[in-house]
Amino acid sequence: MAPFHLALINPNTTRSDTDAMVALARGVLPADAEVLGLTARRGSPGIEDDYGHVAAAAEVVALMQENAGHDAYLIACFNDPGINAARELTTAPVVGIGHCAYLAASLVSRRFAVITTLRRGIPALEDSLSAHGLRDRCVGVLALERGVREQGHEDAVDPIVEATVRAVEELGAEAVVLACGAMASTTAAIAERVRVPVCDGVTFGAGTAHALWRAGLGTSARGSLAAPEDPGRRFT
Amino acid sequence: MAPFHLALINPNTTRSDTDAMVALARGVLPADAEVLGLTARRGSPGIEDDYGHVAAAAEVVALMQENAGHDAYLIACFNDPGINAARELTTAPVVGIGHCAYLAASLVSRRFAVITTLRRGIPALEDSLSAHGLRDRCVGVLALERGVREQGHEDAVDPIVEATVRAVEELGAEAVVLACGAMASTTAAIAERVRVPVCDGVTFGAGTAHALWRAGLGTSARGSLAAPEDPGRRFT
Amino acid sequence: MAPFHLALINPNTTRSDTDAMVALARGVLPADAEVLGLTARRGSPGIEDDYGHVAAAAEVVALMQENAGHDAYLIACFNDPGINAARELTTAPVVGIGHCAYLAASLVSRRFAVITTLRRGIPALEDSLSAHGLRDRCVGVLALERGVREQGHEDAVDPIVEATVRAVEELGAEAVVLACGAMASTTAAIAERVRVPVCDGVTFGAGTAHALWRAGLGTSARGSLAAPEDPGRRFT
Amino acid sequence: MAPFHLALINPNTTRSDTDAMVALARGVLPADAEVLGLTARRGSPGIEDDYGHVAAAAEVVALMQENAGHDAYLIACFNDPGINAARELTTAPVVGIGHCAYLAASLVSRRFAVITTLRRGIPALEDSLSAHGLRDRCVGVLALERGVREQGHEDAVDPIVEATVRAVEELGAEAVVLACGAMASTTAAIAERVRVPVCDGVTFGAGTAHALWRAGLGTSARGSLAAPEDPGRRFT
Amino acid sequence: MAPFHLALINPNTTRSDTDAMVALARGVLPADAEVLGLTARRGSPGIEDDYGHVAAAAEVVALMQENAGHDAYLIACFNDPGINAARELTTAPVVGIGHCAYLAASLVSRRFAVITTLRRGIPALEDSLSAHGLRDRCVGVLALERGVREQGHEDAVDPIVEATVRAVEELGAEAVVLACGAMASTTAAIAERVRVPVCDGVTFGAGTAHALWRAGLGTSARGSLAAPEDPGRRFT
Amino acid sequence: MAPFHLALINPNTTRSDTDAMVALARGVLPADAEVLGLTARRGSPGIEDDYGHVAAAAEVVALMQENAGHDAYLIACFNDPGINAARELTTAPVVGIGHCAYLAASLVSRRFAVITTLRRGIPALEDSLSAHGLRDRCVGVLALERGVREQGHEDAVDPIVEATVRAVEELGAEAVVLACGAMASTTAAIAERVRVPVCDGVTFGAGTAHALWRAGLGTSARGSLAAPEDPGRRFT
Repeated sequence: MAPFHLALINPNTTRSDTDAMVALARGVLPADAEVLGLTARRGSPGIEDDYGHVAAAAEVVALMQENAGHDAYLIACFNDPGINAARELTTAPVVGIGHCAYLAASLVSRRFAVITTLRRGIPALEDSLSAHGLRDRCVGVLALERGVREQGHEDAVDPIVEATVRAVEELGAEAVVLACGAMASTTAAIAERVRVPVCDGVTFGAGTAHALWRAGLGTSARGSLAAPEDPGRRFT
Repeated sequence: MAPFHLALINPNTTRSDTDAMVALARGVLPADAEVLGLTARRGSPGIEDDYGHVAAAAEVVALMQENAGHDAYLIACFNDPGINAARELTTAPVVGIGHCAYLAASLVSRRFAVITTLRRGIPALEDSLSAHGLRDRCVGVLALERGVREQGHEDAVDPIVEATVRAVEELGAEAVVLACGAMASTTAAIAERVRVPVCDGVTFGAGTAHALWRAGLGTSARGSLAAPEDPGRRFT
Repeated sequence: MAPFHLALINPNTTRSDTDAMVALARGVLPADAEVLGLTARRGSPGIEDDYGHVAAAAEVVALMQENAGHDAYLIACFNDPGINAARELTTAPVVGIGHCAYLAASLVSRRFAVITTLRRGIPALEDSLSAHGLRDRCVGVLALERGVREQGHEDAVDPIVEATVRAVEELGAEAVVLACGAMASTTAAIAERVRVPVCDGVTFGAGTAHALWRAGLGTSARGSLAAPEDPGRRFT
Repeated sequence: MAPFHLALINPNTTRSDTDAMVALARGVLPADAEVLGLTARRGSPGIEDDYGHVAAAAEVVALMQENAGHDAYLIACFNDPGINAARELTTAPVVGIGHCAYLAASLVSRRFAVITTLRRGIPALEDSLSAHGLRDRCVGVLALERGVREQGHEDAVDPIVEATVRAVEELGAEAVVLACGAMASTTAAIAERVRVPVCDGVTFGAGTAHALWRAGLGTSARGSLAAPEDPGRRFT
Repeated sequence: MAPFHLALINPNTTRSDTDAMVALARGVLPADAEVLGLTARRGSPGIEDDYGHVAAAAEVVALMQENAGHDAYLIACFNDPGINAARELTTAPVVGIGHCAYLAASLVSRRFAVITTLRRGIPALEDSLSAHGLRDRCVGVLALERGVREQGHEDAVDPIVEATVRAVEELGAEAVVLACGAMASTTAAIAERVRVPVCDGVTFGAGTAHALWRAGLGTSARGSLAAPEDPGRRFT
Repeated sequence: MAPFHLALINPNTTRSDTDAMVALARGVLPADAEVLGLTARRGSPGIEDDYGHVAAAAEVVALMQENAGHDAYLIACFNDPGINAARELTTAPVVGIGHCAYLAASLVSRRFAVITTLRRGIPALEDSLSAHGLRDRCVGVLALERGVREQGHEDAVDPIVEATVRAVEELGAEAVVLACGAMASTTAAIAERVRVPVCDGVTFGAGTAHALWRAGLGTSARGSLAAPEDPGRRFT
């Protein structure tokens, strides 16, 4: 069987985030898998608002169009920006780290908490949980009030550990979801210090993309995710 | 009181759609109201898919940034692309024709049907109804299998009338929603021939924007719709 | 175009409430609009319970029958008593201040809180939010434990401001809804002191009724809101 | 133990309906139970619309006030008009035939259909199922297009049997609910001819009221169902 | 009429629980009713987890098969283990104390709290409320962190009274549900000390089973609850 | 890294089903992965009802206890019998083919249909979709009226292909879920003949279990899925 080619699309402009996430994805894929990291060229270095998500979605679509032919695509921003548009551009599997992190938590616990960066992002996360049918599984979304660019460093571990402990003790969380791609590089450090599963969407997302591919499953070409009506129409 | 200034943003690239919608909006606003029509410069002439919505959202945000200072904004594509990002850029009211058309139907009926262009758009419309909490009020989404650019003409009236009659007779619809900005110019012609309210979001959307403004209400500056974290960051 | 005639039906028996609400409605309608205030002749001076709402609904229906021919009707008690029965009696638009206040909040924020009079009213408000599909948008219903007749005065402002601040700081509210018609006369005073939109249903409700009328939309005559089976049957 | 005293309140004005329902209730209660039948003095002989329900609710409340002291109350119109107001007037159990019929169906089947009189009543029934959390259990509401006053007679049996067969064969119904008090007198005749449970709210409602009473349970005096704020306030 | 024969199946192995529940059931049934108590022979003396529920369900099914011919069955463990399988084995009514306790609370209050043994059981109870469509009626599930075998004694009353007071004062509960069969023998003692209805599923469950039987209603033989495909297949 | 050890538990008693599913799982796992197939010793050769599911759950738990120490567990009956009890017995990942098949469909389409064996199983499948929050994504559950033991053969392909075509053409399905483990061996043959993704839970379930394991995620040991209160208590 030919090796698996995954394109990991980082919708923010921070290349070090891309590199860290590519490394995590490689760590859970077969040794011969190839992971191409793609970084947004325009937009925000750390997306915290809908303004940033709109730009991110446009970049995701542009990067999809310029990088056709991969076996699967992983959109690596927690809001999964532009994911359905991306799916219209391919029949390969396209998964997002937000959706995948929620699925991981729903597979290893009955109740989970979500830990995010800024408080302003809570409604978008709650709405996303509702759209995925998982809002009743979530006991709370906790904001650290530390932005994306303050995540992924060693000193970002303590606040997340504290929030996790609070979620477990006070809210009954049985697992936590790290709602930010930049947090993924600290997952292991956090997991060592808490006693519940710590779910990021990068590692499980890469595995999910691979599992779909191995199962022969890809994006449906019928209905809402079919190719755009005018595929030659480029907007970038 | 100073006259009302509304910016109507047409997220597709068809200027005649913009003109027709501006005329409809003017028709329901006070005589001294001003309506500025803005047309997307990039993207699709008639949006039918998520690919088109991603481009549209980017254009909506760009047009918001270039046209600050209006009393209210009406996003005039049924999917309401980029609406929450647009709201982050102003404290004036920002409403969308999709949301407003649903609200109109919910105010004049207990059960309504939605009439749209292509079948592929049905899941997005259903998901939008769910997000607005109105899916149980909708008895069905009927697709004409005639695209956006086939709407707004005289010969587009018959198929919509037929779909309306079917929705009323077979599904129990008490009102219909026209799920396409380009259909709005035919609302009156359709309404003459059917016996239920025909709701488009352009006329009621313009009125809603005006009603919010008169009530002194505008987009919240606290929480999820506050100004973007880095307002100077331009992505276009 | 002929001037707009609105009938504002106050389902409680306090004429000063009616007068205050009529003044607010006039303030947001065109200069030539006429607003007829109608006050319940039987029932409660300030409705706090279902017992009161049953009486109020009967009065609303009676006042509708005695005052046919208006361009639109605004039912001005937050529970919207008798609203669907009222709609059966006309093809003009009939809107309620409860529904309209929720819609205003849903248009200017992603999350809102509701501020009400007595704690006993919370379940009815929550159920109403559920029925309108907006319960997930509401972060909490806060009761002042001060009744309807203690609202609308200058000294009613402070407690509402305090509750608003609490809702914003602790619950993440981005807007507040004033769940009592008598509170509407203090909306402006409250809004001056808080930094989120303050939504009452009287001003936005009057504007909504007007917007429906201008859009040519009225209550559906088909289905559940059709005229009562025996329109000559009077029960008062 | 003292015998059980049940007040059965028929919210329509048709005394023969009251008599038939009292007989059914007696048939399922202990031999020494007393059932007082109360008939609305104003309103409709057969309620088909919200206009009728508003009048019915007012009559229910009036009859509750004039007939205090019973062990339990059964409101015998399928819409359960005025039920929460009635509950505010007593700490005895107050149940409605609509709610009880749905509960019966939910106890003997996983999926049921509802059979009603006129098509116009369908939205109100669906909304009631939603409010009781049972809409997903209902496979469909079928309207006979024969009014309340055409029910309860021998020749009303055939159409209900036909609708039941259709609901079972085509929709997967495992039980049916008769959504009209007047249908209850034909339940036995229908049940003989179909092969699924036929649930009316009169017999099971009387039994439910009795079961609550025997379990020592009555309406809560705390919170939303506490006595009205001004119990001396009469509105009739 | 022949006397009513109820089989009460206690899915835990503690015979004294069975005896106590049989006594409670007898107390609310007609004097000539017969209640046969059946106790699980395998499984847990006090079920606190899903492991225990799986064993309990198997025992419930085995006891159903060995004790055919009763007029109704009451499954007396709050999780209602194996209830739909039990229903497949009979056309008599089969009700569970969990479902019935929720129904009791929904009939006497608009908002209730649930009081349970261990915190670990909360997700299962919440999921069960969701499945019955009643999660929005429940203001909270409170765990005593005292197991099933610590319930039913005199000194178990205080903690439940305290939890009830907290639920009423802080959460707005208007009634409480005792989510454990072993608690039922203390219902009366608790009810004396609190001012809201205290709902256990044993007394109301016995009454509900009786009410269904008197109404001539039993488990549907059509569809999902029909006899198992191979009724001779025994698995114990 | 040590090779992956998966235990695939077939809750029915048909060893050829186990063998077929083990082969499918092996086909999507790394070459050095080991898959142990376990077959229920008691219960049904092809589970169609809740009676069968109760027995299956007991067998799943027994097989879990006798086969500790695997890296992950796949419960291979579409109802996922006993899955939460199984999770209490390990901190390794435990996934079910039902849940996983739904997730696959939700990742490659916006709307899917479910194809099952007997009509009587539809309510259980719908309830399961509701519990997973995916009911709104499902356009319909289609029953073949051919039992489990009639699946998995060459001549079982045609009816499934026909049902798939119907689901796509008439209901708007963009993918189909095969709701029966025995169908999985025909997935490839079906997929060749239809133009939408065909999702079985065996292949994607094996991949999901592997992906969780590679991401270092296993069942939470805190809260509802913690070890049973008395782990020594055996009920078989």
